[in-house]
Amino acid sequence: MAGIEVPNIVIGRLPIYLRALSHLMEKGQEYTSSQELGQILGIGSAQIRKDLSHFGEFGKQGTGYEISYLRDQISKILHVDRDWTVVLVGFGDLGQAIANYGGFGSKGFHIKAIFEIDPPKIGNRTNGIVIQDVEMLSEVISDKQIRMAIVAVPAAAAQVVADKLVEAGVRAILNYAPITLTVPDYVKVQYIDPVVHLQTMAYYLL
Amino acid sequence: MAGIEVPNIVIGRLPIYLRALSHLMEKGQEYTSSQELGQILGIGSAQIRKDLSHFGEFGKQGTGYEISYLRDQISKILHVDRDWTVVLVGFGDLGQAIANYGGFGSKGFHIKAIFEIDPPKIGNRTNGIVIQDVEMLSEVISDKQIRMAIVAVPAAAAQVVADKLVEAGVRAILNYAPITLTVPDYVKVQYIDPVVHLQTMAYYLL
Repeated sequence: MAGIEVPNIVIGRLPIYLRALSHLMEKGQEYTSSQELGQILGIGSAQIRKDLSHFGEFGKQGTGYEISYLRDQISKILHVDRDWTVVLVGFGDLGQAIANYGGFGSKGFHIKAIFEIDPPKIGNRTNGIVIQDVEMLSEVISDKQIRMAIVAVPAAAAQVVADKLVEAGVRAILNYAPITLTVPDYVKVQYIDPVVHLQTMAYYLL
Repeated sequence: MAGIEVPNIVIGRLPIYLRALSHLMEKGQEYTSSQELGQILGIGSAQIRKDLSHFGEFGKQGTGYEISYLRDQISKILHVDRDWTVVLVGFGDLGQAIANYGGFGSKGFHIKAIFEIDPPKIGNRTNGIVIQDVEMLSEVISDKQIRMAIVAVPAAAAQVVADKLVEAGVRAILNYAPITLTVPDYVKVQYIDPVVHLQTMAYYLL
């Protein structure tokens, strides 16, 4: 499989499979099938088998997939079988909700530094992390060799923040600001824009 | 074009085009091209022309697209040239950030009711909206004929909430809880799960 590039859309589905597998494990189930996964996720079972076939053979005819094995394998493929250090930029309402969300740490994504431009917030602590002046961003990221960042600043500030993050060495940005960021090809950006989702669904409502 | 179903993935890109067009308008620009839009969004210009061709002819050879016209047309196609009423279920950290986010109302999505299960929060007000007991959910949605909901409750409660929403008449759910919801075919669900995005990007980091 080395050297063959897997389509981005397939990579994007692996975390969804992982989530479903974890859910089944929590329920105490040991085996599953592409049919069952497909039903849970609303994806065709053939699509699931094809997606997984990019990475090897994970199921057995008759018994299907051993859930804990498949979960471990997908975790390795995605490089989420280890811990990641993440910085958060922006500590407004949204940034605070992100900092307090338990779902990142439990999946191995640890917010280890938080940056903010608003002086009254700087120096405060949340979950043991000191909110730092955004001026410190480059230094902290370089020192700690951090590669992942979450951007939760207003739209007008997001591109400047992204530029600083990339310059400091960040290679993956989760952007909550409602603008498309311009970054070099070697940097990945994913977007969270709830309005885009509401607008997409509005199409189907009339 | 009536009767021909446009692929979901095309519909999902229209809000992104809308966002880019609004951004260009705010900068005072009057005309754009599929090339320029493609560059801003990291999408091929041929793809953009093909997406738009599902709905008609919007550009002119030589001058390209008139931004305000194209924006209005896409708004109409998506049914976002009108206001939508939305309910929010869950008023924890995330629900509070959602309720306070100005980006929904400015795009015509108005949160008009908020529901919560935690007694101390019920009866409080935020932006003029009273937090109501989740027991009131069905009645309020039926009365006001609300079709859109944002779910910001813990994973364990999300399916029960979704069932109640659908029964009361909701047809579009924006789900922030990290589980896949089971809903009838006539209900649209879109997901916001930041961990999925971080996991997807982790693949590319090593």
